[in-house]
Amino acid sequence: MELQVDLERIKANILALAEIGRNSDDRGIYRMAFTDADMQGKRWLTEQIEAAGLESNRDGALNVSGILHGTTDLPRVLVGSHIDTVPCAGALDGTLGVVVALECLRCMKASGVQPLRTVELIAFSDEEGRFGGMFGSQSLCGQINPQMLATMSDLSGVTLHDELLRHGCEPMAALDAARDPDSIASYLELHIEQGPVLERTKKTVGIVDEITGLFTWAITLRGEANHAGTTPMDMRYDAFMGLADFAHELPRILEENGSDRSRATIGKAQITPGATNTVPGLVEFSLDVRDTSDTILDELGVAMRKALSAIARRRNLMFEFEQKSHLTPVACHQEIVDRLLRQAGRLGLDHLRMPSGAAHDAQIMGGMVPVGMIFVPSKNGQSHSPAEWTAWSDIGAGANLMLQTLIEMASE
Amino acid sequence: MELQVDLERIKANILALAEIGRNSDDRGIYRMAFTDADMQGKRWLTEQIEAAGLESNRDGALNVSGILHGTTDLPRVLVGSHIDTVPCAGALDGTLGVVVALECLRCMKASGVQPLRTVELIAFSDEEGRFGGMFGSQSLCGQINPQMLATMSDLSGVTLHDELLRHGCEPMAALDAARDPDSIASYLELHIEQGPVLERTKKTVGIVDEITGLFTWAITLRGEANHAGTTPMDMRYDAFMGLADFAHELPRILEENGSDRSRATIGKAQITPGATNTVPGLVEFSLDVRDTSDTILDELGVAMRKALSAIARRRNLMFEFEQKSHLTPVACHQEIVDRLLRQAGRLGLDHLRMPSGAAHDAQIMGGMVPVGMIFVPSKNGQSHSPAEWTAWSDIGAGANLMLQTLIEMASE
Repeated sequence: MELQVDLERIKANILALAEIGRNSDDRGIYRMAFTDADMQGKRWLTEQIEAAGLESNRDGALNVSGILHGTTDLPRVLVGSHIDTVPCAGALDGTLGVVVALECLRCMKASGVQPLRTVELIAFSDEEGRFGGMFGSQSLCGQINPQMLATMSDLSGVTLHDELLRHGCEPMAALDAARDPDSIASYLELHIEQGPVLERTKKTVGIVDEITGLFTWAITLRGEANHAGTTPMDMRYDAFMGLADFAHELPRILEENGSDRSRATIGKAQITPGATNTVPGLVEFSLDVRDTSDTILDELGVAMRKALSAIARRRNLMFEFEQKSHLTPVACHQEIVDRLLRQAGRLGLDHLRMPSGAAHDAQIMGGMVPVGMIFVPSKNGQSHSPAEWTAWSDIGAGANLMLQTLIEMASE
Repeated sequence: MELQVDLERIKANILALAEIGRNSDDRGIYRMAFTDADMQGKRWLTEQIEAAGLESNRDGALNVSGILHGTTDLPRVLVGSHIDTVPCAGALDGTLGVVVALECLRCMKASGVQPLRTVELIAFSDEEGRFGGMFGSQSLCGQINPQMLATMSDLSGVTLHDELLRHGCEPMAALDAARDPDSIASYLELHIEQGPVLERTKKTVGIVDEITGLFTWAITLRGEANHAGTTPMDMRYDAFMGLADFAHELPRILEENGSDRSRATIGKAQITPGATNTVPGLVEFSLDVRDTSDTILDELGVAMRKALSAIARRRNLMFEFEQKSHLTPVACHQEIVDRLLRQAGRLGLDHLRMPSGAAHDAQIMGGMVPVGMIFVPSKNGQSHSPAEWTAWSDIGAGANLMLQTLIEMASE
């Protein structure tokens, strides 16, 4: 019979890690990067790796590895995710990908068959962004420099530098975490979808073909605050109505310039002065635009600027915007996508080829080596909250898909 | 030669009152009702009244009066406004109406001609609403009751009751301020426009024919907060987009159901959770709708409810609203409007018949006696700020229009 993951071990690991950083009040998990809870999680993971008879390692960026040596020096296969969390997190998110990778290596080790290629479980540091995000995978890909290490700080002003020293680690050692791209054949990651698509379409797993790129803007529309009673409608410079006009244009802009993978979100808005009886003089709002094509992202950006500029002219508003972030889309490696699709079919799993709308370590890794991602369904599309959950049966299916794919990739 | 106001005396009075409650930092005036500064303003006004040889009075609601006795017991003509201010106020607002009324009585007194009807200057207490607004005019109209007197409090929790006691006044005496409607022939008020219309149309004075009514709603649209990247556009329940849809419908609703005197304003909105990368799950916003016709206000309310309800259904949102306030429109008395128009024409003033979009003591008084209002232009439409201003020449023109109208109305 074909090798299979032990779902009970996955369950036990998930539930064990869920107690590390658990808050007893809100039942949320607080295992933000480089906190004591996160360091405890890293120690727990190292113990599990060693208990499975695998070699453990911790690099200068505090990425934790578990290594199953192959019979050759061929570039290795990496598999993993992250165990740090947002504040008030659920039990899965990146943790599931790490636990599944651990289980895969445990199965392969226990089967006694030594693979051709070395397979390495990796749990990346600070994916969630206490200090900016994707710190571990960026370190591994050589995207970190001394200035970043010296200046990165969290929302309360604690620097990464001091936090690493506090744990007895040398901050500059993160620079040593950079790997030779030629040493890595590929990177695989299993993650919860964090969206509603698999659940709504009743699929067990998603095979990610592209990871979305995005830009976010901070936009300001400035008009004139006036009395809501004494200012006739045609004598107003109403900044909020400018925002409403723009929001109303979003569906058209997506239809004209986007794809079915395009997303545009206005997630926050601050109205000044913000009184019931005052025409808004100023509105500052965010715009988050995503697509899996860089060309489409550019075209969406142009169309959004045109719309904002036309609305500002029409309503006599001043318009400014600042790009706050930009992430280039990353395609998963076609060969890995095909392999995952084939394995999913062979295992009889209801699956869907789909984009990832969220960013993951695979997005950073994809800039250096071929990557592939497996999604499992998120109940009600929820994540980053204690309500985050996935059926154990879906987790088992995703884990077996990862195991079979890993075995195949490690033996070629 | 016809009697005329002394513009220099008006200037001197405005500038003197502007120093009472003046903040040296922001140059704003802080003469909120029943503060020490407001009480000092009332004393200053009483002194001016007495210095002019008029009889002064202060009723139980601390309304300050100056009385020029007529030769008969015919119902009297009231003229005035208020001298309390919002925080960080300008020098005019209600103060101008009180100072102009004072100047009118001074001129009439100095002319030596005793009018047929008694003419009474009145400066109403707390028009601006430290304790709810229109306290003085409501007291005079008998709209105050013991429960209100016992419970009204300001934003920092100070009760009107304690504040009156602090000044050595008996709170329940406000009930004695109520007048017999038959004792009053009419009420006249001069006020700054607080809007841009007179300035834009290059008019010297406005003759108010109607004072707008209004309703304000607090509206909640509840959807579902979701990840901005992983939630496809057609799987969202975006509360903010519901608000944007509604804002977009406002011009249509006004065109279909409103008049050229209709106003609709969304002045504040609170988006939850309010993160760049999260589809808004909840939006709470204000709606302020005004018109001078109660029927139109009702029709606008119905149309707004229909629009909100349709948008909520379309976007799968929950929709709730609460009426926060309602003010019935008040028409100025046709005979007084005609009289003001005739006098303005006779004086050669460029004038405009117009609605008042803001509420004034005249709105309360209009529920009991015939009222008339004169507007003078507001520079840049500004009010309730140290930038509030009106050209002295316009003030002089408005004051002479008030004087001539008062003389006429007091002699018939």
